[in-house]
Amino acid sequence: MRRKNMAHAPCPVARSLDCIGEWWSLLIVRDALMGKRRFGEFQRSLGAARNILAARLKKLVACSILEKIPAADGARHQYVLTDQGRELGMVLIALRLWGAKWRFQAHEREALVDRTSGEAIGLELRTKEGRRVRPADLALAPKVSHRVKAPSAPA
Amino acid sequence: MRRKNMAHAPCPVARSLDCIGEWWSLLIVRDALMGKRRFGEFQRSLGAARNILAARLKKLVACSILEKIPAADGARHQYVLTDQGRELGMVLIALRLWGAKWRFQAHEREALVDRTSGEAIGLELRTKEGRRVRPADLALAPKVSHRVKAPSAPA
Repeated sequence: MRRKNMAHAPCPVARSLDCIGEWWSLLIVRDALMGKRRFGEFQRSLGAARNILAARLKKLVACSILEKIPAADGARHQYVLTDQGRELGMVLIALRLWGAKWRFQAHEREALVDRTSGEAIGLELRTKEGRRVRPADLALAPKVSHRVKAPSAPA
Repeated sequence: MRRKNMAHAPCPVARSLDCIGEWWSLLIVRDALMGKRRFGEFQRSLGAARNILAARLKKLVACSILEKIPAADGARHQYVLTDQGRELGMVLIALRLWGAKWRFQAHEREALVDRTSGEAIGLELRTKEGRRVRPADLALAPKVSHRVKAPSAPA
């Protein structure tokens, strides 16, 4: 491994990236969320080198993000998302919203919408009771040394 | 570059990762959100090799996520987040929430809370009018070939 092991870092961002921070990993999770399950499907979708793809899949299985199961036809195994793997969907939605806003021209931009009403969807910070909270109002509990700052407030 | 250029990929996730998908990049953005600005500060925080860190900072500047500005004391330049860089805060919050939930034991887990009330905070999908939407109800508009699936629904 060419980078620092962050599996035991005190910061949850670092620990998350320890599992999914390598190039290809989040794109594999994206493809899995879209229904891809076989090595060949990931390979065709991503165009990654086979040895790299195999290493990424192995790591995602080791992190319990993917589970390797025998295929229905008994021939080849498949990779299916675990609960924690599916919950990475929120990370991918955050990346998708950011990318659509900042990395596309207006005319080529896609929007996440409610399937039924067609209304545009955004990500918001809310309390369990549904009260909206500004990023600037966030704190960490219990108090730790690394602080979160507002995503959209001036630095 | 050892990986495919995704700057013009049709998928916003891939385009986002083209800028921030290399190892260290999101940790640099995390540190910048926490107020770090100087090369040496990033270096001490991350322990990254100087040449790698320099390459990542250069890429983040090229992507307009960081801006390189002369320091107040005129001695060394600083790296400050642009608007689009600060908006990556939502991606980091999504990673933080996922990591805190899945990569920590319960007793060592941190929570994002509202600074004033102490209430726990989560990320939710909402319409502009504030109506909550389930991930399973998401669609892309205009209709494109890559489909988003529910983060938490069974595969």
